[in-house]
Amino acid sequence: MAPLFERLTIIGCGLIGSSIALAARRRGLVGEIVVTDRSGPVRERATALKLGDRVTPDISEGVDGADLVIFAVPVLAMGAAVAAAAPHLRPGAILTDVGSVKGSVSDALAAAAPPDVFVVPGHPIAGTEHSGPDAGFAELFEGRWTILTPLAKDDPDYAEAVARLTAFWLALGAQVEVMDAAHHDLVLAVTSHVPHLIAYNIVGTAADLEGVTEGEVMKYAAGGFRDFTRIAASDPTMWRDIFVANKTAVLEVLGRFTEDLQALQRAIRWDEADKLHDRFSRTREIRRGVIALGQDSPESNFGRDRDRKGPPGDGPGT
Amino acid sequence: MAPLFERLTIIGCGLIGSSIALAARRRGLVGEIVVTDRSGPVRERATALKLGDRVTPDISEGVDGADLVIFAVPVLAMGAAVAAAAPHLRPGAILTDVGSVKGSVSDALAAAAPPDVFVVPGHPIAGTEHSGPDAGFAELFEGRWTILTPLAKDDPDYAEAVARLTAFWLALGAQVEVMDAAHHDLVLAVTSHVPHLIAYNIVGTAADLEGVTEGEVMKYAAGGFRDFTRIAASDPTMWRDIFVANKTAVLEVLGRFTEDLQALQRAIRWDEADKLHDRFSRTREIRRGVIALGQDSPESNFGRDRDRKGPPGDGPGT
Repeated sequence: MAPLFERLTIIGCGLIGSSIALAARRRGLVGEIVVTDRSGPVRERATALKLGDRVTPDISEGVDGADLVIFAVPVLAMGAAVAAAAPHLRPGAILTDVGSVKGSVSDALAAAAPPDVFVVPGHPIAGTEHSGPDAGFAELFEGRWTILTPLAKDDPDYAEAVARLTAFWLALGAQVEVMDAAHHDLVLAVTSHVPHLIAYNIVGTAADLEGVTEGEVMKYAAGGFRDFTRIAASDPTMWRDIFVANKTAVLEVLGRFTEDLQALQRAIRWDEADKLHDRFSRTREIRRGVIALGQDSPESNFGRDRDRKGPPGDGPGT
Repeated sequence: MAPLFERLTIIGCGLIGSSIALAARRRGLVGEIVVTDRSGPVRERATALKLGDRVTPDISEGVDGADLVIFAVPVLAMGAAVAAAAPHLRPGAILTDVGSVKGSVSDALAAAAPPDVFVVPGHPIAGTEHSGPDAGFAELFEGRWTILTPLAKDDPDYAEAVARLTAFWLALGAQVEVMDAAHHDLVLAVTSHVPHLIAYNIVGTAADLEGVTEGEVMKYAAGGFRDFTRIAASDPTMWRDIFVANKTAVLEVLGRFTEDLQALQRAIRWDEADKLHDRFSRTREIRRGVIALGQDSPESNFGRDRDRKGPPGDGPGT
């Protein structure tokens, strides 16, 4: 099919930026790809991996003439990146991002962008615990959801820009949902941000526990711990920014999590076995839904290596 | 090689019991396998899957003449199961279990068993989120650790029994470690029990959150949540028993977890970004150790389906 955009510029070449470049190229969605990253080593890898037709450190040169610019930097770095690009943006260009927080990021984008471009904040909900240009792969977005949080604008040209960006994400293999930024931030706080925080936290608690060595923690990780170490291996800078930028929703969900955990803690202390059993039974429903919606495979690798023979995908226990 | 035991009886035919049966059979470790389970449907599946030479509901008949008896029932059911077997146990038989808690279970086993058998409590640290006889597979224990917590007995015959049980687990492909029950319970509280509790808890918190539908929680699970739903899909009865039976260690670790989490919460509230970054950076070391020790594969399926092409196994982020 004909390219959807003449020139795509990707600001920031981490896991997401490099995956977008690889997927857009493979699917022929854009005429030209320009990649910018301020890190020399990252640019070297991006060049070696042929992620862009051009790889440059200079944002202003990078965005020159682009009709689609995607900002894929940590969320607290978005505002400055857009400000650096602003004077050189082509009028009518579509500006979007891939930040995991939308409220504060949308404000930063809107404040820094010139009035003659279309700002359409977005967030592809896909990732691995790996970081950097070498971690990218073209299939990352297939079957995953990308959420767009358009600014409130009653403007047919803006609506057209949203439609073009939607077409781009669909062409990358993603499903697209539109919602307001505040709702996005609450949904992600509970499905992603707080789960990452508690994964980081339990790994830290284990490392600090007197009488238990880190070696023991690692040896016996098959008991469930290793899924937490995997999540807690994600990029620290990206996550630091997310918690600062989505403070309100994260603190709200954390408050509820702690309240619920204390109820479980009390049930354990007072041997309220039925209360525990009821709570543990409910969560299976959610698991079934996650599998049914194709957001995970019923054959997980939890508890064994992936190359082992496993049980029937749907044992009586699931 | 010659069978290590003439007759193995497995009490309880869930994921672990059925996996032991399949592995012992495939490796020719025992002359005969008898499986008992009090559930009719489970016995039907066990028979259909040919898990034992005999499948019976009757523990007393099942343990008759066995020189190795493995109790693989929920930890709070261990005492009653051993009591039912006691009058029919062959003198000199080795009695062990696979419970995830060792302190209270060792006491229950020792109290219910006759004096002329050898009680050697054990715990294979392996599992999946699946339950029941259909979930079992012969490779489950390969490369995993089995912890034995022998009773304090200065007795050469008892030492010989421990050595024979160790040989059995090694022959199943496991690595064997010996430690005291209290240390086991603390190590497992932090690497398995509390991680499961907080996974159950966040899934419950998400399900209860007003303004966010369960459908949304499931749709956007790729953000990290799905690893928690996987863990939280484990058998509710087994886990209810574990928390009641390992109350002391679980409450101790939970207290530290909550304390650490509140420190992170405070850092978020007060924008202490550096404190967050430091904490998140530390946990990567642990992840590297888990991979180095072969307790997980660097190519995890977190963030994508397992059949997708992935990035190089060792991206710069790991």
